[in-house]
Amino acid sequence: MLDLDPRPLPQEGRIRAVIENVAPAVDGGRFPVKRVVGEEVRVEADCFTDGHDVVVCVLRWRRQGESTWRECEMLPAGNDRWRSSFRVDKLGGYVYTVTGWVDSFRSWQREFRRREDPADIRSAALAGAEIIDAIAQRAGPRDSIELRIWAARLRDAKDIEDIETCALDPVGTSLALRHPDRTFACDWPVEYAVTVDDARARYGSWYELFPRSTGTDGRHGTFDDVIERLPYVAGMGFDILYLPPIHPIGRIKRKGPNNTLSTADDDVGSPWAIGATEGGHDAIHPALGDVDGFRRLVAAARTHGIEIALDIAFQCAPDHPYVVAHPDWFRHRPDGSIQYAENPPKKYQDIYPFDFESPAWRSLWLELRAVVQHWIDEGVRIFRVDNPHTKAFSMWEWLIAEVKRKHPDAIFLAEAFTRPKVMHRLAKLGFTQSYTYFAWRNTKQELTEYFTELAQGDGREYFRPNVWPNTPDILTEYLQYGGRGAFIARIVLAATLCATYGIYGPAFELMDAAPREPGSEDYLDSEKYQLRRWDLARSDSLGDLIARLNQIRRENPALQSDWSLRFHATDNDAVICYSKKTGDNVVLAIVNTDPHHVQSCWTNLDLAELGIDTGNPFQMHELLTGARYLWQGPRNFVQLDPASAPAHVFRLRHKVRSEHDFDYFL
Amino acid sequence: MLDLDPRPLPQEGRIRAVIENVAPAVDGGRFPVKRVVGEEVRVEADCFTDGHDVVVCVLRWRRQGESTWRECEMLPAGNDRWRSSFRVDKLGGYVYTVTGWVDSFRSWQREFRRREDPADIRSAALAGAEIIDAIAQRAGPRDSIELRIWAARLRDAKDIEDIETCALDPVGTSLALRHPDRTFACDWPVEYAVTVDDARARYGSWYELFPRSTGTDGRHGTFDDVIERLPYVAGMGFDILYLPPIHPIGRIKRKGPNNTLSTADDDVGSPWAIGATEGGHDAIHPALGDVDGFRRLVAAARTHGIEIALDIAFQCAPDHPYVVAHPDWFRHRPDGSIQYAENPPKKYQDIYPFDFESPAWRSLWLELRAVVQHWIDEGVRIFRVDNPHTKAFSMWEWLIAEVKRKHPDAIFLAEAFTRPKVMHRLAKLGFTQSYTYFAWRNTKQELTEYFTELAQGDGREYFRPNVWPNTPDILTEYLQYGGRGAFIARIVLAATLCATYGIYGPAFELMDAAPREPGSEDYLDSEKYQLRRWDLARSDSLGDLIARLNQIRRENPALQSDWSLRFHATDNDAVICYSKKTGDNVVLAIVNTDPHHVQSCWTNLDLAELGIDTGNPFQMHELLTGARYLWQGPRNFVQLDPASAPAHVFRLRHKVRSEHDFDYFL
Repeated sequence: MLDLDPRPLPQEGRIRAVIENVAPAVDGGRFPVKRVVGEEVRVEADCFTDGHDVVVCVLRWRRQGESTWRECEMLPAGNDRWRSSFRVDKLGGYVYTVTGWVDSFRSWQREFRRREDPADIRSAALAGAEIIDAIAQRAGPRDSIELRIWAARLRDAKDIEDIETCALDPVGTSLALRHPDRTFACDWPVEYAVTVDDARARYGSWYELFPRSTGTDGRHGTFDDVIERLPYVAGMGFDILYLPPIHPIGRIKRKGPNNTLSTADDDVGSPWAIGATEGGHDAIHPALGDVDGFRRLVAAARTHGIEIALDIAFQCAPDHPYVVAHPDWFRHRPDGSIQYAENPPKKYQDIYPFDFESPAWRSLWLELRAVVQHWIDEGVRIFRVDNPHTKAFSMWEWLIAEVKRKHPDAIFLAEAFTRPKVMHRLAKLGFTQSYTYFAWRNTKQELTEYFTELAQGDGREYFRPNVWPNTPDILTEYLQYGGRGAFIARIVLAATLCATYGIYGPAFELMDAAPREPGSEDYLDSEKYQLRRWDLARSDSLGDLIARLNQIRRENPALQSDWSLRFHATDNDAVICYSKKTGDNVVLAIVNTDPHHVQSCWTNLDLAELGIDTGNPFQMHELLTGARYLWQGPRNFVQLDPASAPAHVFRLRHKVRSEHDFDYFL
Repeated sequence: MLDLDPRPLPQEGRIRAVIENVAPAVDGGRFPVKRVVGEEVRVEADCFTDGHDVVVCVLRWRRQGESTWRECEMLPAGNDRWRSSFRVDKLGGYVYTVTGWVDSFRSWQREFRRREDPADIRSAALAGAEIIDAIAQRAGPRDSIELRIWAARLRDAKDIEDIETCALDPVGTSLALRHPDRTFACDWPVEYAVTVDDARARYGSWYELFPRSTGTDGRHGTFDDVIERLPYVAGMGFDILYLPPIHPIGRIKRKGPNNTLSTADDDVGSPWAIGATEGGHDAIHPALGDVDGFRRLVAAARTHGIEIALDIAFQCAPDHPYVVAHPDWFRHRPDGSIQYAENPPKKYQDIYPFDFESPAWRSLWLELRAVVQHWIDEGVRIFRVDNPHTKAFSMWEWLIAEVKRKHPDAIFLAEAFTRPKVMHRLAKLGFTQSYTYFAWRNTKQELTEYFTELAQGDGREYFRPNVWPNTPDILTEYLQYGGRGAFIARIVLAATLCATYGIYGPAFELMDAAPREPGSEDYLDSEKYQLRRWDLARSDSLGDLIARLNQIRRENPALQSDWSLRFHATDNDAVICYSKKTGDNVVLAIVNTDPHHVQSCWTNLDLAELGIDTGNPFQMHELLTGARYLWQGPRNFVQLDPASAPAHVFRLRHKVRSEHDFDYFL
């Protein structure tokens, strides 16, 4: 028998209310939940006590850095669960928690209402007067007088009916409720954090292009060429223009076209091989221009309503200045050379990764923060972070917190195509958005399962998806073999399933579908290693369709958030149907996921979810074509041809007018 | 903009492994999980790191009060989840936690295996030699020498094949694995507790009787009469004999037969109205005998393999000695009188509840602990706690911890028929077992849902069900109207669905089914308020059936625990089918829940769950009758007659012999 220490009596044994299971809570409060400015945080908790007494459960919240709590009473949601919400109006951080107590006044009044025996009622009135007097002692001078008068009236009342009326007096009651006795309140010990981001964290349309391919006549493009391209990008309705790394590109071990090892003198190299004699992560590739050119671009983009997003790729070319200045930031091989990136048998000789187990980790972290701060100081607020899952998690958590402390509008998109828990960890620790598995979710079942998880799963509190049908690294087989119908289906799915999506263009709108080799997802003649010339004026470009989709996204708030996503049944496994709803705005999309054949189906709409009365017809406004249809009930016929219109995007307009709508009908 | 403090660099930034989602964990570790001596605690955790390196994840555990951790490596379970388990061999408390680290040696070896380029292999061998030398520095003198020799061999090897063989040398590898570099280990910050109870906490058959009804010729029964009754109780195979309160019964406001207010002089009163001039919670009702009689009973019961369980009802009759000695432990009405129990409009004038908001709560808690300790000192270890949900949760948590600290074999059964979260809270805070909603779960669907929740839900880590088809307060409509078939169905369900069950007898085995009034669940002429005489020798008694059931429970380990419970489909909504399995022991029960009609069905057994090969017939040994059947495949026909045999309890014996079983067949 082990001799265990006696368990001391608690400091205060009269705390009878208990609280459990406060939600939302990410890993028990270890990480914040995420919202954007203006959203609600709906909080729930279990709260109860022993016996029959009434508990009061209160939600408390405040901005981070402020000391005063705001409070509101939570409402019962059944099964001892309580619910309330608060609005986050400002960028930055909020915290919330819950407190509860056994309320003697409310318990007394509730029991009083149930009493039947006159003797009991008289006795309970006197007990109530004592409680009210106690409240008066806590209340301020003004309320105090009124409460004392009420207690005295309750003591003096003779007639049972008078006693009953007096005990439940609404004015007295509302006064008493203002001054509850919280001496024995149960304060939940955890304060949960909320990260409040800019609205752009939730909704935006991204466009990625390689600036170096924007030059005319095969010339290396510059920032000024990108400025020339802005009307084209803005014309398609994009909000964010994301540029691959704009820094000097290493010359040592530079990769040639199609990722070959031998390079010719005029090969441009991969922008992700960062750093050369001209500078590193805070420098600009001379071929693109200089810092003034970059500033002109940022400013010009803003006039088009476009934000520039930069790439953060924390890795170095062998000729990056860091390699000489800070050799201790890298791992060394036994022969003294620096270890390049590898995942045996693959080797990436043009890339030196940082060593996050270096004894010099502190100076490394501070420098990485300085890199981000440099571009923040240049007016950039949106960062697409390259392969964050190959750098230490704790570094990201610290760096993002540090940046967002001063610049809470900063957005970090994690480009981590890796295992689910790793992707979720990055989202928890601070990444604002994440790339997803969308590119490889092509069937109705895959899409339904994945987007149900994204929109309804617990992870939605911190994991904001940003879906891309293609990237410079991802040309899926679906696009390679599906033709125009596949491109249209994928862009409609991306733009309507997810409030934030992006494409890599002009490869996408021009339907570039040639892989480097069969079975590869790499583009043939990829812009990662060479310049490309694109014929933007091609008549088959999807530019107009994309412009229409982004306009629909702007005009329909339902498409600007994700949690309302619901799937509706159809009787064809190739046809997917789903809706989003924000207030009155209801959008329903139906997409043929088969790029090769005409497919038709009968829908089985969840009308309650759509806010439609079963008996009445309703108008479906097809937003891609402008056509209007009258539908009734859950079952409606749809046919979708990949060659012409593989998708419908409907807005529910209203119920259809009938004679009942005329004033004189009644 | 609020000015938030800078986020400091962490103490150690090189901890690259992360741990998440350790299970089991009750409310994030706020409460312990429960096991009995000899059981396993299976622990899971997510553990991973950035990049490709190998992580090692280790389960650590120790007994509470001991300082040395035991450890074992967890095994990967897919999706970055790790799993291991440990056995709790001793009563009391254990704690467990998880740690993980990025392992440089294993990462090196794993990458080494994948290398193809000879130059790389040579370089990697040198890098490995450095790692092995570093391990040698950590290792003790003996291992150190061998490791250094290994490193030297690795450096000196010339031929590629020799290098490869040397790098993966199994002896060297196993030495190296003994001395991992845990400098940057990620220690999960929470230590989770396990409460390890006596085996009786998991498995036992309870019998409740009123000692006062055991007298012969209508005389008030005594402890010695109960001793006379022991062979009867033991003959039915019960392990625990639970007695309602044995203390002096109050005379003030004593209740008469059928809970009437007016009492005659010879009315015996309710045993739950505790305390009179003769004493309170540590005294014995003189009509039952004295402390020597009680000791005789406890000792005699033990010779029959029976433990005596006492009732803990923390409430007082108006003439309880506490009322005069400690008036501050009670709530007072404005007229100075003590507030009796009430739930308006209901009143319980014979009961004074304790006031857990009393300023004197400390002395009250200490006294309540002393009451339990008094009966512990008399050799009692099992307590059925009356209405624990009407006393402060924090008091129970402290009291049970205090008692179990010295007497870890103590068992507390919570008699809380109340809302689910309140019942779960009591289980979390320390109650060993809990009454359940079983009495009101009568249909196949109700039983399936409820017992799936009990056996498979998260609550099973702390909530141990103890199911009763009847209690002195609960005579269900199912029993009132269902006749003998209903009693048999309910006792078979109780005894086979749940490792711990109980009945209130002799009312149950004699099928007492008369309610005080229609619509009531109270017994007519309830023993709670009067003596009853029972004809134990009645030929229709269910005693023999119960004896058989309890014998089956003893002989079949499958029925002595709950987590293996699985339901199997039948094509009749009135017939429920389920199995339990422990090692080779597999029991399958099929019960007709319709007490009025013969019901038949085809089963659809989950053969994999039962451990049966689809192709072979198997023998079903019906344990109630001894009959043996040959079944094959999932579909088998069963017919159950409530008038004769409403239930089957089968033991799967083995696959049936065929010519293949003869030696000469091959």
